[in-house]
Parts: sequence; C-alpha cells; structure tokens
Amino acid sequence: MYEVALQGPRAGNPFVDVQLRAQFQCRDRVVGVDGFYDGDGVYRVRFMPDEIGEWSYRTSSNAAELDGRQGRFTCTAPAAGNHGPVRVRYVTHFAYEDGSPYVPLGTTCYAWIHQGDKLEEQTLATLRTAPFNKMRMCVFPKSYVYNQNEPVYYPFERDAAGHNDFTRFNPAFFRHLEQRVRDLETLGIEADLILFHPYDRWGYATMGAEADDRYLRYIVARLSAYRNVWWSMANEYDLGLLKSKTMADWDRLFRLVQEKDPYHHLRSIHNGMVLYDHSKPWVTHVSFQSSDFEKALPMVATYRKPLVYDECKYEGNIPRRWGNISAQEMVRRFWLGTVSGAYVGHGETYLDPNDVLWWSKGGVLHGESPRRIAFLRKILEDAPAEGLNSLSTYYLGAGQEGRYYLFYFDINQPAEYEFDLAKGVRYRADMIDPWEMTITPVAGTFEGKFTLKLPAKPYMAVRFRKVD
Amino acid sequence: MYEVALQGPRAGNPFVDVQLRAQFQCRDRVVGVDGFYDGDGVYRVRFMPDEIGEWSYRTSSNAAELDGRQGRFTCTAPAAGNHGPVRVRYVTHFAYEDGSPYVPLGTTCYAWIHQGDKLEEQTLATLRTAPFNKMRMCVFPKSYVYNQNEPVYYPFERDAAGHNDFTRFNPAFFRHLEQRVRDLETLGIEADLILFHPYDRWGYATMGAEADDRYLRYIVARLSAYRNVWWSMANEYDLGLLKSKTMADWDRLFRLVQEKDPYHHLRSIHNGMVLYDHSKPWVTHVSFQSSDFEKALPMVATYRKPLVYDECKYEGNIPRRWGNISAQEMVRRFWLGTVSGAYVGHGETYLDPNDVLWWSKGGVLHGESPRRIAFLRKILEDAPAEGLNSLSTYYLGAGQEGRYYLFYFDINQPAEYEFDLAKGVRYRADMIDPWEMTITPVAGTFEGKFTLKLPAKPYMAVRFRKVD
Repeated sequence: MYEVALQGPRAGNPFVDVQLRAQFQCRDRVVGVDGFYDGDGVYRVRFMPDEIGEWSYRTSSNAAELDGRQGRFTCTAPAAGNHGPVRVRYVTHFAYEDGSPYVPLGTTCYAWIHQGDKLEEQTLATLRTAPFNKMRMCVFPKSYVYNQNEPVYYPFERDAAGHNDFTRFNPAFFRHLEQRVRDLETLGIEADLILFHPYDRWGYATMGAEADDRYLRYIVARLSAYRNVWWSMANEYDLGLLKSKTMADWDRLFRLVQEKDPYHHLRSIHNGMVLYDHSKPWVTHVSFQSSDFEKALPMVATYRKPLVYDECKYEGNIPRRWGNISAQEMVRRFWLGTVSGAYVGHGETYLDPNDVLWWSKGGVLHGESPRRIAFLRKILEDAPAEGLNSLSTYYLGAGQEGRYYLFYFDINQPAEYEFDLAKGVRYRADMIDPWEMTITPVAGTFEGKFTLKLPAKPYMAVRFRKVD
Repeated sequence: MYEVALQGPRAGNPFVDVQLRAQFQCRDRVVGVDGFYDGDGVYRVRFMPDEIGEWSYRTSSNAAELDGRQGRFTCTAPAAGNHGPVRVRYVTHFAYEDGSPYVPLGTTCYAWIHQGDKLEEQTLATLRTAPFNKMRMCVFPKSYVYNQNEPVYYPFERDAAGHNDFTRFNPAFFRHLEQRVRDLETLGIEADLILFHPYDRWGYATMGAEADDRYLRYIVARLSAYRNVWWSMANEYDLGLLKSKTMADWDRLFRLVQEKDPYHHLRSIHNGMVLYDHSKPWVTHVSFQSSDFEKALPMVATYRKPLVYDECKYEGNIPRRWGNISAQEMVRRFWLGTVSGAYVGHGETYLDPNDVLWWSKGGVLHGESPRRIAFLRKILEDAPAEGLNSLSTYYLGAGQEGRYYLFYFDINQPAEYEFDLAKGVRYRADMIDPWEMTITPVAGTFEGKFTLKLPAKPYMAVRFRKVD
C-alpha cells in the first residue's frame, strides 16, 4: 500500500465539503482512487499498486491546497507471503491475485474489534494458531443477546446524549478498524468486512440512503487499499432493522462499492430468510446462511459462482438452536460443503460467565471442531489448485476428474463400495477419518471400476489421487 | 377366530366357480363374511367375533352343498393378552380394540415367510426378544438384490415351466402365510401385510385387474379374521413393475379391501417417490417412506391420521445409501419421529455371506439400534395412552399439555434451556440419554417457566411428567 498524506482545510465539515481524488499511473495504466479526510486537517489517498515499476500520481480536489499535488514512487516486488487480494478463480473457487491457491476456511467474530485492546489481542493470539484464513467481522458495533457492552470507538461523532452526526466520521474508529484489518493480514487472514447489520441500538442500521452512501464511499476510500479486505454488504440483510432498506437500496449500495473500489475486492451479501438475487453481476460469490447442504449442488450450478456457507450454525451450548450444534456436526458440515464443491465457515458459541462468546467477541476457542478444520485445511491445501468440483456421484464426492477425488460418506457406513473413476489412470487411495484426523493409505493402486473395502463406520472419507 | 369348514364341489375351478358367504349374527348384530376354497373339496368361512355371547351363522352359496348351512357358537371372553385388532385412536395414534395402548415400533423382513422353516423359525426366535410389535412383510416372494432364491411356496398354481394360473390359488402357500401371521400374533406382533410389491420375477406385480381383484378377495376372505392383520396395499406402489397400475387401480383395490374386510383392519400404502393421496377416506394412516422428519408436523396436520415412517432407510453396511445408516442415526430417527407426534419403523441390512439380511429374510439381528428401540418402547409405554402430540415447541417436543412432555434435542447441545410448560401443574423432570439408555431424575419439581441445566451433549432428551 502506498499512502499520500496531505494537509488541507479544517473549516466547515471536511467530510462532506471536500472532494479529493487521485490518478495513479504506471506506464499506460491509470487508476482513479478516492481520498478521505482523516481529521486534524490531514487528508489521505491510499493506493494498492498491482504492477511492479514506477508509478506517478496527481490529485484533484475542490480544495486548492489538495488539488494538483503530484508525486512518484516505485512499486517493488511483493514481500514473501504477500499473494495479493483473493479473487474468484476457476468459476466456483478462489485464488490469490498471484495465482496461489486460496481455500476459504473462515470463522466469525462479528464484534471482535469493539471489545478493547486486551480482548482483541487475545483474539489475535488465538487466531495465530487457529486454522482460519477468513474472518467475518462487522464494521459497526453490535447490540444483541450476549452483546450488551458499549464499543470503545463509535464510527460517527456523537454528542453526550448519544446523538450521531452521520455527516462526521470518527477517524479514531476507522484507524482502529484498519489496525485490526492489518493485524489479520499479518496472520494471513482475509477480513470479510460486514458493512451493515441489523443488531443495532445506535442507529447505524437506519441512517438513510444519503448517510449510507457517504459511509460506503468513506470506508471504501479508507480500506480498499488493504489487500485482505472483502466486502460483505450485510449480515442478515433481510432481517430486523435492515428491513428499512429495499432491494433497490441493496442494489444501489452494491453498485456503489463496485464503482468506488478500484481493486474490485470480493463482494457478497449474507441472508437471513430470503436470498438476494446472486445472479446480479456485482455479486462475486454466494455468502450463504444455511444448514441445508443439499442446496449446495443446485446453488453452485445455478449461480456459477463460489458458494460459501458463511453461517451453518455455531458449535456451542447456548440455549438457542443456532448456537449449540456439536463439534461433530460442525465438522460434518465442513465435509459436506467440501464434497459438494462449496466452502464452509466456522463459528462458536459456548456460554461464558462474562458473555465472551467467540462468535461475536473473540477471545479463546473452546470447541473441538477447529482442530478438525485444521486437518481438513491440510487436505485441501494438498488438493488440486483448481479446486474441488462436485462430481455428482452416488456418494457425495468432489475433485478433478482423472486426478483427484474426495468422497465423504456422512451418516452412511458402507462396508464396501464400487467406485467408478476416470479410466486409464492409476490412483492411490487413502481412508480418512475426519474426526480422528487420520489418513490411512490403502495398499495397491486402483483404476476404473473397482470395489474397495470401507471402514463400515459413519462420517468417513476416501481420497483418490493419481499416481504420478 | 371361529371357523366353519364345509365339504363342497371339487369339479371345474372352485376358486372362480363357487361363491360362498355367511351371515354371522349376535342378537341384532349381523356381519357378512366371504368364505374361500382351501383345496381338496374343503371350503372355509372364518369369523372374528367382536362381542361376547351367542352367535349363529347361516351360509349362502351358488353350490347347493354349501348353501343354507347353519350353526351356533359361544364367543367367550378374550384370553389374556388378546386386546383385539389395532385401530386408529385419538385421531393420530393407535390403540387396540379394547382400548389398551398400542405404540407401533415396527421392523421389516419383507420376504421372511419365503425362506423355509429353518430360517423362518430363527426369525421368530429373534423376534421373541426383539422390541418390535409390528412386522412389514410381503405376501408375494421377492426378487431383488440379495434376494435371488426361489420361494418354498408359490401363491398360484404353476406348471413345470413356471407359468402361473392366476385363477387357481395354492392353498399350501396361504396356509403357510397364515401360520406365520399366527406366529407373529403369538408374539404380540402386528402383521403389516404388503399385498403388492414391485420386486418380482414371477408375474405377481402385473397380473391384471381381474386377477388382482380375485387375489384380494381371496386373501381378505382367508386372513381378515386374524386380529393382527394390517393391509398395506403395496410397498413402493409407484415404482418399477407396479407402474403398470394406475392411480385409479389403487383406488379400486383399496376400496375392494375396504368393502370385503368386515373388520376394517388398518389400510395404508407405502410410497417410493410420489405420495398416494392420503386424504382419501379408505386410507387409515400414512405409511411413509422418507428420511425427512421435518415433514412429520405438516403431514400429521394435513392428514389428521397417524403417520408411520415405515421406511427411513436401514441400519447396516451394504453399499447402497438406503441400507447403511449407522445405529446412532437409526435411533436418532426413532426419536425425531416420536417427538414429532409420528412413529418410526426399523430395518437392518448388514452384509452377510449367505445374503441373509434381516431387512428381507429375517434371521438374526446384528445392529445396535434394537436395544435402544426397546428403551424407547419402555418410555412410550409409560407415556399417556392418548399418545404424544407435537407441541410445536422451539425444540422438538411431543406430549399431552399439562401432563407429559418429551423433548429431544437432536444435534443441538444446549447447556441450559428455559422451558415453558402448562401452568398450575408441578412436574418432575428426567434427563434421558437415548443411546446410553439412561434415565436420570432431576432433583426438585418444576412449574410454568423455568430454566433447566442440560447435559450440553447432542442427542439428549428431557421428559416432564405431572406430579400426581
């Protein structure tokens, strides 16, 4: 990221009065980027170059001090571990910009950045050894069961009585958000930023169209140069306070982000009951709340976009049904999604005397599923970079025909099964126990149609890989 | 059962040439019953009286020797353990004719009566200690995977080349069937007789309307006086060879059984893909093939008839998905059905070197679910005789408001939950582990709204019973 900081007007309301843009250029390539006001008379323009080489820029503004400012810089090769932003690749899968594989295995800590540094740093420490490479997180603070605390920072200026001035952003809030996005980036974790959500007692869900648009322009200007940002337009866009927005509002908000983000970070929207029309071109992938994995195949086939089960309930023990599935069930769902050609996100809700539930506040993980998700992650990182496509087989299986097959038997426990793999290829087989986290090679090689003895236990998997 | 045996004509084809009926009378009550030809010049009329006292009868026939024969007998009190046939009671439940509770916990041995005495007697020995009180069984022999053997008896006369004469029944076949129905009766097991099925290589699935009707009249005349008979019009009535029958055929066959069976034994029809219209008045209960227990509540609410999941896949380890669910899953399904106000049937398909799979041939049980079904049966036999009705609660629960509540938490593992039971009543609570088969009383009594600590394990149940 390259950042231009400029001194500019402080008078009036710089957040609405002052426009600032910059054109960045490298050889023939020109990219237009919005700047933003960061308080105390400081304006910034951030840029994420995508080519190695010499870049120049020139600003334009309705404020004379900010207009026509120029500069140059050299974009050097990316540091080790920097693969660029995540993109849709191979139609229904993902990869980093540089082509490196990216298999989303996400988790959810909706309000983790609103908990104060101590807990937030504990969350980061937990993530350091957790298997997750995507985090669903809200920009705005959250008001909900187990979420009664006030945030440390508020996104807008507010008076002592708590009245918001939606025309004035709070730069400290956004600096803190950016710090946490950077912290995740350091850990190799994508920040799936939830721009709106219905769990609100401060007014952020119902600001009105003008304030919504201003907020999106501001956050896109501030954050789109962070390579690990994804835009999730909303969590449960169709529920509660978010019902104040119409489908046309969501279209407009989506298109605004699409237009304003010069890097085209991934864009999605997460449902409550009613699915947004994911065939719309500004939706890059399906962010799906559902526990119904039989929908995976038809959804992938319909949308021809990656499908991420971003919320399939939470491992935990709270009284609500959405927050108390067993670790076994969570692991099962990760496997069901995987062998359906989709992706699955984790979340955890164990009762805590201080209401620190991972699902919303972060902290530490208590559950039994993350270790098994780590096990699955290793398997997926060994799989073809082109991703696992549903094979539409009798037992759920995904892979790349003739090269790689991963079957999962779910509640079924056959003692044997006749597989029918692409002919003319020899495969090695592994029995996989997703819960016990064992991979047991089967003696010999296999080809075409053959019957394999299976463990006759439920929740087992089998992998076939082409013999090189 | 009272039986009248008469000598009559042997010439021609007595099965089609001779009609025989009898009127049985007790005081003002008159019941008309069909007789049948049992071979060797012997005709029989069987009668199941439903009142204690003096009965008389008088036959009518187109054969002079069989016409106008009269007799009398005394119907005495039923023997211990004889509660009469099972009836629909309390709208969506069952009870024996004398009002004793009957909670169906069935199993399936489709072709067990076609396996020869040795295996059949082993099946009966197994049933003696098994928890099942209903058996789904086919009249006709079965041709299917793992079912390649010829039957001992054929239902019709056939020549050396195997051509059937559908106008001539084989009395030995039916005597054997009756013996097995009686054997089940001795064990307190209802015989859910499947009249047609598509797994056929002998021609019984495609005899044509005339032969179908003749067969139904014959079997109803022979068997309806057995108190433990239920009529299942078909297994998978809409699949394979049974597609030769139209929906109008099924209506006609149903109505024929309804008209000919003077005792109105239970009548149902079991589906493959497409459900028969169960709102038709001759359908006494829903015999459902499905693994979808979310359908239970709407189906019971729609039909207002008992719902029996007669096939929800089989515990086992064969390669096919329908025949290899785990014992845990089978037990789960029994509980899901129960707390949805429905009933569930068992079946078992473990691979066997001699193809003796319980599901079709009987023999011995290998699985882990029957012990747990016995545990559930004990619980249900302790429950209100009026049956368990769905309570439409947040967690699946069924019972009788103010008296009895049974909740099942399935994959959910809450550590606590606030229950809301009918007020003004004190309840005792029990924690139930359906797999470990433990019932653990909770100290104290409960009333109205209260929060209970729960085991925070999946697949647990809680029972509340009114303190007397």
